[in-house]
Amino acid sequence: MHFSVIFRVLGILLMLFSMTLLPPIFVSLYYNDESLVAFLSAMGLIFATGCLLWLPSNKTRHDLRTRDGFLITVLFWAVLGIAGCLPFIFSDQPGLSFTDAMFESLSGLTTTGATVITGLDDLPKSILYYRQQLQWLGGIGIIVIAVAILPMLGIGGMQLYRAETPGPVKDSKLTPRITETAKALFLIYCTLTITCALSYWAAGMTLFDAIGHAFSTVAIGGFSTHDASMGYFDSPIILIVCMLFMILSGVNFALHFYTSRNRSISHYWHDPEFKFYISCLAIGIPITIAYLAHTDTYDLETSAIHGSFEFISILTTTGFGTADFTIWPGFLPFFLFLFAFMGGCAGSTGGGMKVIRVLLICKQGIREIKRLINPNAVIPIKLGQTSVSDRVVEAVWGFFAVFVISYMIMFILLMATGLDFLTSVSAVGACISNLGPGMGDVALNYTDINNPAKWILCFAMLLGRLEIFTLLVLFSPSFWRR
Amino acid sequence: MHFSVIFRVLGILLMLFSMTLLPPIFVSLYYNDESLVAFLSAMGLIFATGCLLWLPSNKTRHDLRTRDGFLITVLFWAVLGIAGCLPFIFSDQPGLSFTDAMFESLSGLTTTGATVITGLDDLPKSILYYRQQLQWLGGIGIIVIAVAILPMLGIGGMQLYRAETPGPVKDSKLTPRITETAKALFLIYCTLTITCALSYWAAGMTLFDAIGHAFSTVAIGGFSTHDASMGYFDSPIILIVCMLFMILSGVNFALHFYTSRNRSISHYWHDPEFKFYISCLAIGIPITIAYLAHTDTYDLETSAIHGSFEFISILTTTGFGTADFTIWPGFLPFFLFLFAFMGGCAGSTGGGMKVIRVLLICKQGIREIKRLINPNAVIPIKLGQTSVSDRVVEAVWGFFAVFVISYMIMFILLMATGLDFLTSVSAVGACISNLGPGMGDVALNYTDINNPAKWILCFAMLLGRLEIFTLLVLFSPSFWRR
Ligand SMILES: [K+]
Ligand SMILES: [K+]
Repeated sequence: MHFSVIFRVLGILLMLFSMTLLPPIFVSLYYNDESLVAFLSAMGLIFATGCLLWLPSNKTRHDLRTRDGFLITVLFWAVLGIAGCLPFIFSDQPGLSFTDAMFESLSGLTTTGATVITGLDDLPKSILYYRQQLQWLGGIGIIVIAVAILPMLGIGGMQLYRAETPGPVKDSKLTPRITETAKALFLIYCTLTITCALSYWAAGMTLFDAIGHAFSTVAIGGFSTHDASMGYFDSPIILIVCMLFMILSGVNFALHFYTSRNRSISHYWHDPEFKFYISCLAIGIPITIAYLAHTDTYDLETSAIHGSFEFISILTTTGFGTADFTIWPGFLPFFLFLFAFMGGCAGSTGGGMKVIRVLLICKQGIREIKRLINPNAVIPIKLGQTSVSDRVVEAVWGFFAVFVISYMIMFILLMATGLDFLTSVSAVGACISNLGPGMGDVALNYTDINNPAKWILCFAMLLGRLEIFTLLVLFSPSFWRR
Repeated sequence: MHFSVIFRVLGILLMLFSMTLLPPIFVSLYYNDESLVAFLSAMGLIFATGCLLWLPSNKTRHDLRTRDGFLITVLFWAVLGIAGCLPFIFSDQPGLSFTDAMFESLSGLTTTGATVITGLDDLPKSILYYRQQLQWLGGIGIIVIAVAILPMLGIGGMQLYRAETPGPVKDSKLTPRITETAKALFLIYCTLTITCALSYWAAGMTLFDAIGHAFSTVAIGGFSTHDASMGYFDSPIILIVCMLFMILSGVNFALHFYTSRNRSISHYWHDPEFKFYISCLAIGIPITIAYLAHTDTYDLETSAIHGSFEFISILTTTGFGTADFTIWPGFLPFFLFLFAFMGGCAGSTGGGMKVIRVLLICKQGIREIKRLINPNAVIPIKLGQTSVSDRVVEAVWGFFAVFVISYMIMFILLMATGLDFLTSVSAVGACISNLGPGMGDVALNYTDINNPAKWILCFAMLLGRLEIFTLLVLFSPSFWRR
């Protein structure tokens, strides 16, 4: 490891992050709320720490190797998580404990959107704004850092790219002129956010809420400035705007990029992952609506709104709520929840295992059956016109297995802390897939569960966001060997 | 398909199966119970049906192809399931409905051991004996038919062998002189059963109970002649005998075969699957005992007995009960239950995914991590000294994925029939892994759940016993294409 370079990178990162506390400071000044000192001191502390890390090593020049990249990526989220929790601790409102503040901060940055805070509506505006902004920054981190910053650090290998960005790589097209691509992705992300904010505003939100919810929508985050989440607004138009932008944000941003570059939407329809994603929505939404209406849970119109909104919110792993889907009848809560394990497309801000992986797993399952029938046939796995290499298929299997095994272990650990079955199963699921809301005791928020459980779930959120392997690699002895 | 040959085979099978009703008939005569007519009429009906299937086609000679083999294997269990349910329907006691009788019959033959019957202690002895014998026959079916009968039918391809017998094949050593091997396996199975029965008898069971429980122990079945299962005997010695034979029956019978042929137990210790199996027991049992004692569930001695017995019973997927493990504190019930998904070794009568598959999945997960660290290294997956071919690894992945996906679908279907979460999750798990007892409403028996749920669980039991793919292949359109 080149620790001096790692320190330098983290130092720069912290100094940059401290700058992102300026907007909440302005919000605090504008609304004249009581959190100004908290943000100022957090900003000073973070900046100073960044300087201290950066100064001793600012002249070091080393080519970073792949394994430094893993460490930086993990430390990136871990260090930002710690830095990001300071305002929650320093501010009298909500005045969180260290554990709670870390949970909230990581939940924001990983765009999980699980919260330990109740009484959101009464919080200082600046804190509310800050939470939303954390998610937006996390979302950018997910999309841009993986494709652009890390390779700029000297980590151009596909290995790391595969580890950090979701799923089977689309790198062949994206790697050339990476800086340009990163800028373009950033632009798309900002454009989506601004359009989303304006749409919310036009649909009737206050400007403050519109910006805040645009942040957490485009980041597939799910934080809200109201306890009732999207249900607060009680407006079908707002829900429709939200659905549209959740669906858009769950798409691979590379597709948005090609579309904006070539001014043609044909890219969407030629992408097998996109088609599968839309198919799942097209199948799942009608089932949800039909079952809600059939069981007289709501009238048909309300079923249509709640059903489609919750299905999209869960599948994309946004986690916004308009109704408490966990008390819906029969199999519905679990039906929805299963889709969160799939999550959004690779290269989106969505969580879960990613659509492309699920698609490849299904294709491989079908191939196994075909192979049993025709033992000697060579049956390639195809995505559109291209054959997927065995190496990629193996990596997807590996991911799936390690995902399931990690899930099981964390589930058992949560039960050992004393949580009940439904809470444990769903909390791990909601955190590892970066969904947010769970079921049982964590249907509404994560306030009441014990501290060890919160730390396990922090780990689950990180694990999910770092695509499992990036984090697990650090636990391998051979990683630390020279 | 060569339906005439398939009919002939099934006809012979049914005629043979009708002969297995002779022992229960003798039991009925000996105890002079009321089920004699039921068995006689079932025997007649089954034999006649067998004849009708066999006669028209008894001169047909065709080489069977691989896909005929799949169909025969599935029909084998399905047809035996139907034939086996007749005594349960014909006998006034227990006088089951068709659904319940099918469930009980399939549960016996697949060695699942889930039961819909309560009040076992008051049933006619012949019915009790018949249930135990069903499991024993099922166990033989699993071990011998796959390795011996099917190839004799002309289905020698590794494909089918891989589909029917568990896991990555050990065929290279077993295929030569297959009939001889089958005889040897049968001999081992019988020797184990007789030794087990004598041990039970010596440990204090009645001869009737000793034989019955030997049947269901060696078959990893879990049926008992008492509602309280093994708890009825309240004897540590009996429990220790039972543990020993559960562990032995969960081992690959090929290992027993080599050991008996070469008169050396070194085969066990050179087998990676056996070592992993024993390691899991060696790790899981102390954890279970320690947690039971730590939480003051029982005193230390009782914790040791109950803890080790239940852990072995669940891991091997036997499903015998001495205490109700589902009400044990904290994570323990789920900790135990997770091991049932692993189950016994390949080539044993145990259920679950099989130890070898779990071992290979773990090894592949570790390889993926190593590959991330050393992207260019070629890292083979080894079992002992031998490298596992990519084809086998892919087949294991395919199995795992399809296992999980089937599980999810059946879980959602069960919830849709109205069962609660814990019941649905555990019932599918207990049936697909051929364990038997679940949690929630199915902790003690499956009597009270609805009929559609019972049929779904019948499918789950078959799916698990047929190693998923053998059954799923039949749902593939290309299977039925010429
Ligand atoms: K989320
Ligand atoms: K069993």
